Amino acid sequence: MNAYSQLITALRLLPNVGVKTAQRMAHTLLHQNRAGAAQLVQALDNALKNIHNCQMCHDFCESELCAICANPQRDPSRLMIVQMPADVAAMEAARCHDGLYFVLMGQVNPAQEMDLSSIALQQLVARLSGSPVNEIIIATAHTAEGDATAYILAELFKEQPYKISRLARGIPLGSELEYVDAGTLAQAVYERNLLKETTGE
Amino acid sequence: MNAYSQLITALRLLPNVGVKTAQRMAHTLLHQNRAGAAQLVQALDNALKNIHNCQMCHDFCESELCAICANPQRDPSRLMIVQMPADVAAMEAARCHDGLYFVLMGQVNPAQEMDLSSIALQQLVARLSGSPVNEIIIATAHTAEGDATAYILAELFKEQPYKISRLARGIPLGSELEYVDAGTLAQAVYERNLLKETTGE
Ligand SMILES: [Zn+2]
Ligand SMILES: [Zn+2]
Repeated sequence: MNAYSQLITALRLLPNVGVKTAQRMAHTLLHQNRAGAAQLVQALDNALKNIHNCQMCHDFCESELCAICANPQRDPSRLMIVQMPADVAAMEAARCHDGLYFVLMGQVNPAQEMDLSSIALQQLVARLSGSPVNEIIIATAHTAEGDATAYILAELFKEQPYKISRLARGIPLGSELEYVDAGTLAQAVYERNLLKETTGE
Repeated sequence: MNAYSQLITALRLLPNVGVKTAQRMAHTLLHQNRAGAAQLVQALDNALKNIHNCQMCHDFCESELCAICANPQRDPSRLMIVQMPADVAAMEAARCHDGLYFVLMGQVNPAQEMDLSSIALQQLVARLSGSPVNEIIIATAHTAEGDATAYILAELFKEQPYKISRLARGIPLGSELEYVDAGTLAQAVYERNLLKETTGE
């Protein structure tokens, strides 16, 4: 396989990229913007070498702990569980959560609720083991996938002594967290629905 | 700017990739398929180092001359001008042109017909200078852009002694060459319309 075919094959590994889109990308990278292409090689190579998952919250980060998990001023008793890294950024911009986060890095497909491999459940259980967390805020989206994910999480913690809530439905149905304005996000945190009161204490 | 932001910025250099798509790509590359991401780094780096433009036809290639231009069995008197590398591949698969090619690497925007920087006109003029070409087949698409490009080329060669033709309209309107079946492509070459008879001899 020649260098051009190899590039097309590699570009098709990107989500939703077919042959035609890959050819258009190759044209941009090899013809219109070779400097940009070199920048992409550099940025992706650097990202692969330096970006890993935070040992606590599973978000992308370049050190063992991300800045939020390493911040002693955050309340370690309140854990907000989100789907994606962009959700953490959106929530931080809304300044309505002073606790810590956990990033699932995915969501549950409601058609395959038994397949939990798309979310970082093992890491979440390990994160909670022996931790001072007593409140869990499920901040998954109000979509079919977000609902299925919230259901799985609520089931997982049913027998555990955590207070568990989910973001209020102030968040527009069907939209992703990162596109919601800060005021609506803050409202949804404030009006979060109690799914289960603290027990076992 | 951290490694993640740099990656998002670099991915947005790809055509039609906004913030949301770049985040989805980053998630695929950093979380779901790091081996594929390494493959992309390797393929793009290799492509940038090895792929250049053929000195004759301007198509992407890994040596000074591509296999077609270097083939002494091709008829050097007939030059087919196409928009993109994929068009050469489609035409070769149709086995209906035994001459050489020139790849414009773009098309003219009919709204900006005076802006010719999107096609390799300078290289085309240099390619033709002193060459044995006596027939030019304009194989641009039957789209607004392809029509504008064909018009510019016909104007460019108006005073030159080339026989000039354009692919017959057997090619479906609005579709790209590479998606047309081989039989239709061959028919369009066979029925190509004469735009100007040879002169000056
Ligand atoms: Zn963290
Ligand atoms: Zn060539």
